[in-house]
Amino acid sequence: MGAVRNILFVMYDQLRFDYLSCAGHPSIHTPNFDRLAARGMRFSRAYVQSPVCGASRMSFYTGRYVHSHGAAWNNFPLKVGEVTLGDHLRKLGMESWLVGKTHMKVDAEGMARLGLAPDSVIGARVAECGFDVWLRDDGLVAEGPQGFYDEKRSPYNEWLKGQGYGGTNPWHDNANSGIDAAGNIASGWLMQNAREEANIREEDSETAWLTDRAIEFIDSRADQAPWLCHLSYIKPHWPYIVPAPYHALYGPGDVIPPQRHAREKHDPHPVYGAFMANPMGQSFSRDEVRETVIPAYMGLIAQCDAHLGRLLDHLEATGRMDDTMIALASDHGDYLGDHWLGEKDLFHDPSVRIPLIIYDPSPAADATRGTVCDALVESIDLAATFIEARGGESPRHIVEGRSLLPFLHGQPPADWREAVISEYDYSATMMAQQLGVAPKDARLFMVFDGRWKLIHAEGGFRPMLFDLQADPQETDDLGASPAHAGECERLYARLFEWARRGAQRTTVTDAQIMGMRGKSRAKGIYLGIWEAAELTADQRATIEGPAAADHRSGASAPAADARPKQAGR
Amino acid sequence: MGAVRNILFVMYDQLRFDYLSCAGHPSIHTPNFDRLAARGMRFSRAYVQSPVCGASRMSFYTGRYVHSHGAAWNNFPLKVGEVTLGDHLRKLGMESWLVGKTHMKVDAEGMARLGLAPDSVIGARVAECGFDVWLRDDGLVAEGPQGFYDEKRSPYNEWLKGQGYGGTNPWHDNANSGIDAAGNIASGWLMQNAREEANIREEDSETAWLTDRAIEFIDSRADQAPWLCHLSYIKPHWPYIVPAPYHALYGPGDVIPPQRHAREKHDPHPVYGAFMANPMGQSFSRDEVRETVIPAYMGLIAQCDAHLGRLLDHLEATGRMDDTMIALASDHGDYLGDHWLGEKDLFHDPSVRIPLIIYDPSPAADATRGTVCDALVESIDLAATFIEARGGESPRHIVEGRSLLPFLHGQPPADWREAVISEYDYSATMMAQQLGVAPKDARLFMVFDGRWKLIHAEGGFRPMLFDLQADPQETDDLGASPAHAGECERLYARLFEWARRGAQRTTVTDAQIMGMRGKSRAKGIYLGIWEAAELTADQRATIEGPAAADHRSGASAPAADARPKQAGR
Repeated sequence: MGAVRNILFVMYDQLRFDYLSCAGHPSIHTPNFDRLAARGMRFSRAYVQSPVCGASRMSFYTGRYVHSHGAAWNNFPLKVGEVTLGDHLRKLGMESWLVGKTHMKVDAEGMARLGLAPDSVIGARVAECGFDVWLRDDGLVAEGPQGFYDEKRSPYNEWLKGQGYGGTNPWHDNANSGIDAAGNIASGWLMQNAREEANIREEDSETAWLTDRAIEFIDSRADQAPWLCHLSYIKPHWPYIVPAPYHALYGPGDVIPPQRHAREKHDPHPVYGAFMANPMGQSFSRDEVRETVIPAYMGLIAQCDAHLGRLLDHLEATGRMDDTMIALASDHGDYLGDHWLGEKDLFHDPSVRIPLIIYDPSPAADATRGTVCDALVESIDLAATFIEARGGESPRHIVEGRSLLPFLHGQPPADWREAVISEYDYSATMMAQQLGVAPKDARLFMVFDGRWKLIHAEGGFRPMLFDLQADPQETDDLGASPAHAGECERLYARLFEWARRGAQRTTVTDAQIMGMRGKSRAKGIYLGIWEAAELTADQRATIEGPAAADHRSGASAPAADARPKQAGR
Repeated sequence: MGAVRNILFVMYDQLRFDYLSCAGHPSIHTPNFDRLAARGMRFSRAYVQSPVCGASRMSFYTGRYVHSHGAAWNNFPLKVGEVTLGDHLRKLGMESWLVGKTHMKVDAEGMARLGLAPDSVIGARVAECGFDVWLRDDGLVAEGPQGFYDEKRSPYNEWLKGQGYGGTNPWHDNANSGIDAAGNIASGWLMQNAREEANIREEDSETAWLTDRAIEFIDSRADQAPWLCHLSYIKPHWPYIVPAPYHALYGPGDVIPPQRHAREKHDPHPVYGAFMANPMGQSFSRDEVRETVIPAYMGLIAQCDAHLGRLLDHLEATGRMDDTMIALASDHGDYLGDHWLGEKDLFHDPSVRIPLIIYDPSPAADATRGTVCDALVESIDLAATFIEARGGESPRHIVEGRSLLPFLHGQPPADWREAVISEYDYSATMMAQQLGVAPKDARLFMVFDGRWKLIHAEGGFRPMLFDLQADPQETDDLGASPAHAGECERLYARLFEWARRGAQRTTVTDAQIMGMRGKSRAKGIYLGIWEAAELTADQRATIEGPAAADHRSGASAPAADARPKQAGR
């Protein structure tokens, strides 16, 4: 089983792959991410299954593509019956706990159909994508004219109130706002306020609070069953506003130049064009916005790094570094103005590529500590990795990802995947409406083979294509280039093969299937047999013998009194 | 809601599309099938989603492609959570009852995972693909050296014992065997015995017995809720042996010539070649086998027809013809030696095309009575038809078929499908083993557009292609013809589009998705906003106001006594 007793699976929200010093960022300083990378392995080409919170997370938590689990966007419920990481781990004697955010929406209709009570142990797990809940907080306590975005109660907001923060929504008024010169709330929703200091003590901020809760959880488990803890942070996700001292760590001089080119605005792919035209794209195309927001984003990351350090210190002090695998990942990136876009959603690397660091305490991983793996990794690989780290065999008829343990143990598989797939469902966005695309067609697929990246859009659009070797910044869309039709065809063939996969055949293993081959004769299904001589003696024995009586037409019927009366005859 | 109160959904097993007199068979006589066709509509180009019992039926019962529900072969369990026809109908106040066969295998592991008790109402329905069970009998009480093929108890077999039939397995010894000259069992498993009279009174045979049970069911419902009754016969499925007088109705002179050509054996597609080489193909390639078995098969159909007549008479006598929709279908066909094959499994019409007759009692259907519809129909369309016949709207985010009511009501849709899809998973067969194909690759897909039929085989094989206009008997495989590469490409594009469909996005409707568009701002998610002026007054009101207190660094902290103590801090 190896040395892995527990798994600490840390998720950051909207953390770009390249905003860590160990990943090469020239101005950010993340000593604790680097510290874990030095003790583990950094995966430099890790991609999420969908560059949006909800869909991406459901893929992490099931090990399955979005096309397989169907929860394709934020607040599209994960359907009842999907098997989760928690289900797999519990079979291996490991508990699976949530501390933080999942963006899971319960399939309430499905639960009612199956009679699953939300307050039962099983029902609660189904409602929380397989986790037992130590703490669930999705962080977005946004409130608009039509009410709250998320109707669930926020434990963090309640805790803030208990700490003496006033008002009805200290999540907004304090944790995610500053104070202007007149003493009024300077909301973090307004990006010009990103340079303000958040109106909260740092130790009460979301990242600090959640780290405290995780430490409490870990300490509470000392004499308990092995655990996976999904510590899932809200940050560095927007609103972009930072508590001191992190709000002042970085300035405009630390902002790296945008990855964008004027040619991207010339006759863009219609879907890309619609996203460039949205408010996020428009805002982040302005230098003033980037120079204000990005230092705040970097400050949020620096704060995450500091609390990671606190967590690692605690794990070291308590001996947990010796028996706990640690994985650090993100659910997607953040354009931050690259490609004239804000937010995530599309498939340029700043959006779809994530940081991924895995520390495996077992001696088998000693040889790879501090190294970087550039294999094409998908977020669904984590579920398989955790199952196998715990000594299980990842059920490949259910989990579509593949274990990364061979890489961690210095034995990379010879047959590793040649391309990664990602998907995006924009059916519920205004961009679909503006493009006049039906809900069924407002879907995008990415295939990336390490050099060529193809993006297919349903609805009759041409593809997009980038050559990341010649054009690492992905600003030259070759999707309409006749000279590149062959590359498109090749990547489309890969996507086609993927789309045909038997992803729903989840109730039989390959071993069970192979065990069924040729077995029906042993169970008396004698097909294609003309005469008894074609059967073996033991097969013949099952169908031969004297007839008990002659019941044929014209033959004497059994005595009437030997026949029980039948209703309705 | 129309006049449809009840639905009688009759399934025959392994009934070919062309073995009815109304479908043009020159020698068989099926006056009762014809009688219903004269009062309803016959669909002449109906195809099943998979030419094998289990997978085909799960598509009928869910309205979803095999690629969507995953129960891809016999005894591959239908996974917990799949929404069934019964679920949809119950929401419309209609019960959904089973009388006969389903070939459903329960996802016991999934039920245990969700804590569903098999003896609970919901658990029992999940275990029976959504039906309430009046009677379940899958008919194949085969017993071999390693035990029974189907470990479930057969109510029919038990009933036979109660009727005075001796031995341990009268299903085999009587219902499916004759008696030879020496008084020994002449098993129906041996096809040379197909000419024998079955050792059973006709009124005790499976078809008669199941019809009796259906009549009992219908009569019991007189004062009950509206019902769907799935009357699902075992016959004319093998074993091929018939009770008198039906065993003697047809002889070799009634057997139509086989649809086959010597060229089919020349360098066949490897998968097709493997099926031709199997025992069924070898046997049915012999004229002696065809001339013995086919008259028995026709006799079984004639018996089905007679009991259909009895059932229709009963419905007429009791007034049920006035409020009951009747659909007659089959789960797949039977090669019977066509294309040098026995059984089903592949995609030539004798296997994948089915008879389909629908009688709608409502006046809206008067204009189409006795007509034939040649639209491309899929078996998944029945679920949608039944839902809409009951006055519901078929949930297109779950049910992939489309209602046939517009055809029945003389208003065919302008946007009907242009091709049908069918699938076959042969991973659990010896053919996969012989071809050396891995379980994940032993899968076939058919696309048929009314003229061209493409069959794709996973695993690196070339496609098969037939032009049913030039070659209606499908004996000229053009899959390797360079001149037809364009047709292959066109049908492959259709298959690709189908494979990419969002079939798992079953928890949100299109209407819900469209209703989400542009709504996040109303809930306080203010994205891409630089300054307050970009918001409306009511949006601004949700994020503005005086700060309750200054909690920033350097500002005075709240009084310590106002803060509750936190564990772990």
